[in-house]
Amino acid sequence: MTHLFDQSEFQQRLENVRAKMAHARFDVLIVTDPCNIYYLTGYDAWSFYTPQALLVFLDRDPVIIVRQMDVAGVQLTSCLTADQTIGFDEGLVQSSHGHPFEVVADTIRRAGAAAASIAVEKDSYYLSVRAYECLAAQLEQASFTDSQLLVNWVRFVKSPAEVEIMRQAGQLLTHSMLQTIDAIAPDALERDVVSRAYASNIQGVDFGGTYTSSPAFVLSGDRIKTPHLPWVDQKMTTNTQVNLELMGNRHRYQCNMGRTVHIGQPPAKLAELAEIICEAIGVVLDMVRPGVTCHTVAETLYAFLRERGIHKDSRCGYSLGIAYPPTGGELTASLRSGDETVLEPGVTMHFLPAIWADEVSVIISEPILVTESGYELLCDVPRKLFIAD
Amino acid sequence: MTHLFDQSEFQQRLENVRAKMAHARFDVLIVTDPCNIYYLTGYDAWSFYTPQALLVFLDRDPVIIVRQMDVAGVQLTSCLTADQTIGFDEGLVQSSHGHPFEVVADTIRRAGAAAASIAVEKDSYYLSVRAYECLAAQLEQASFTDSQLLVNWVRFVKSPAEVEIMRQAGQLLTHSMLQTIDAIAPDALERDVVSRAYASNIQGVDFGGTYTSSPAFVLSGDRIKTPHLPWVDQKMTTNTQVNLELMGNRHRYQCNMGRTVHIGQPPAKLAELAEIICEAIGVVLDMVRPGVTCHTVAETLYAFLRERGIHKDSRCGYSLGIAYPPTGGELTASLRSGDETVLEPGVTMHFLPAIWADEVSVIISEPILVTESGYELLCDVPRKLFIAD
Repeated sequence: MTHLFDQSEFQQRLENVRAKMAHARFDVLIVTDPCNIYYLTGYDAWSFYTPQALLVFLDRDPVIIVRQMDVAGVQLTSCLTADQTIGFDEGLVQSSHGHPFEVVADTIRRAGAAAASIAVEKDSYYLSVRAYECLAAQLEQASFTDSQLLVNWVRFVKSPAEVEIMRQAGQLLTHSMLQTIDAIAPDALERDVVSRAYASNIQGVDFGGTYTSSPAFVLSGDRIKTPHLPWVDQKMTTNTQVNLELMGNRHRYQCNMGRTVHIGQPPAKLAELAEIICEAIGVVLDMVRPGVTCHTVAETLYAFLRERGIHKDSRCGYSLGIAYPPTGGELTASLRSGDETVLEPGVTMHFLPAIWADEVSVIISEPILVTESGYELLCDVPRKLFIAD
Repeated sequence: MTHLFDQSEFQQRLENVRAKMAHARFDVLIVTDPCNIYYLTGYDAWSFYTPQALLVFLDRDPVIIVRQMDVAGVQLTSCLTADQTIGFDEGLVQSSHGHPFEVVADTIRRAGAAAASIAVEKDSYYLSVRAYECLAAQLEQASFTDSQLLVNWVRFVKSPAEVEIMRQAGQLLTHSMLQTIDAIAPDALERDVVSRAYASNIQGVDFGGTYTSSPAFVLSGDRIKTPHLPWVDQKMTTNTQVNLELMGNRHRYQCNMGRTVHIGQPPAKLAELAEIICEAIGVVLDMVRPGVTCHTVAETLYAFLRERGIHKDSRCGYSLGIAYPPTGGELTASLRSGDETVLEPGVTMHFLPAIWADEVSVIISEPILVTESGYELLCDVPRKLFIAD
């Protein structure tokens, strides 16, 4: 049972997935990515650290296989009925003697699909090699193919109901980013700044947020050379730079955004680079609209930066939406050369023209929604290098 | 470069792993579990959402392969030198055209190990089926075997330096649990309680904590029937129960603990069950010492509960230590029937005799350290059903 989306929305999502399955000649799709399970059923639990799977068939209702103790969670959060929910025995959890995917294989067999064409998510974090080998050993007559992110691609264009939730995620992130920047000061403890980032997303505005796909990234000192390090247990000092990448998450829909803060007057080089990046964002966003490809967006950025003597040819953005750890990206479209994905109304992306150079780094980014005529910013945080003092 | 552990400690860990590799006749071990990479090198970054690997050889130095933008993070946090660090091109990130494990295969080939016996972590969240298939296709002459959690088992017994950090994680969790329980009251917003849980772990005591493997579990109302649901955006009301499972994380070492809180006077059934569980914990812990098996610990609990008319035969605990999402467990020893793992000094476990029955549930648990003569509690929180009013 869920109240966030109508039953008809779940039905439409399922139909869209089945249409792609039929086109690719898949009889069964084994969904293991928790983002995709949530999208298709509303099931929202931190149970994916144990193997679980949603089976989508062309001509019968989907079935979910989860750990026995998680069956109540399926009933409480998803659109699936008790008939569609199978709990596997606790003895199969983290055991060397058996595997939950024996139950998945058995369910497929009982559905008469033992010799079917089965698609699996070979790039999912939550389909282990062991689970896949178990499946292949149990269903020797079946043929297995990579789903090629089939459900992720269906998720690419958001429905009006999803757009509304993405806007709420953006509001949470606006609040969280401003609160976090506000906590940065000479002698502030880095852990206090980080604590503010978490608390502000969770406590939220007139509504609250939920856990994000990734930790808050609060990088200062030497650590501004690279994007993924944890915060450290130290004080912030004057004349240092802080790179922030934060997230706002509402009902598992997530926006990401970066800002760079300098404590005290910034070096000229940093100020100049930040100004160029801000200008670049304006120029690039002005050409975002339906029909434009990700490739064209990226090339516009690269050319703008090249004219100013800055080399960048790596990815400068990715598709946003439902997010569970370990990533906020949908793993489909990237803003980079060669990605010919066409932007459409309802697409949401994180445009992240970040620069990590040897001597200077800047992270200023925007989560955006592609609209009928252009784009909409999902957050409302001044686009500039922030100065704290 | 890292200051948390001596170089000699990393050397010892590597030797322990190599001894097990030699015993199992593995020439190369491909480590993809970020807990294991951290254990062997100190490398600590949220970069595992992109494929990466540490290669351990029997007779040459380990080599790490990470995304180019993460190379600086390896330099800043690990004991590996620049020679031991390979960055792969950004174009391989989330691309359908190529895969980072082509670089892993190439590195193995250049080490003269193209026809070697290679162990891989088939149950790791961060070795995808696609990565494994890429490897097998690139190294046709090699033989691949599951490592059977080789490094995880080396991690099972903690060194004195690690024990010290586990104690700090316990102090953080004691603080966080007490702060969170204190925030629970009639009309408290669930999101405010959760925010306190996060902030108290991060801000910590005289030292701070870092991100945990899992979200804070704060379950009330209907959601106490199951363990893994997210918090919701509602008020707490009188006469409701709240089940908490929280974590304290210091330098990636993590303790987990559960407590049940009732707002207002608890029903007799709940109070009775909580009393039995607390008594059971005392009885079971009294027999924890080196030489006892996980099986015996679990059976002692089951028998104690059976005598009181309570049926439980599922897992009641697991090994604790280094934790990255999505789980705080080490995936090795479990407290359950049939697990003949023998307890040793330096083992840390989460003893979690939780009951989720149809009509009542209680979560009261303890993270513990096995000592020379018995056990030590890693947290110091009253063992009881808490009443909030």
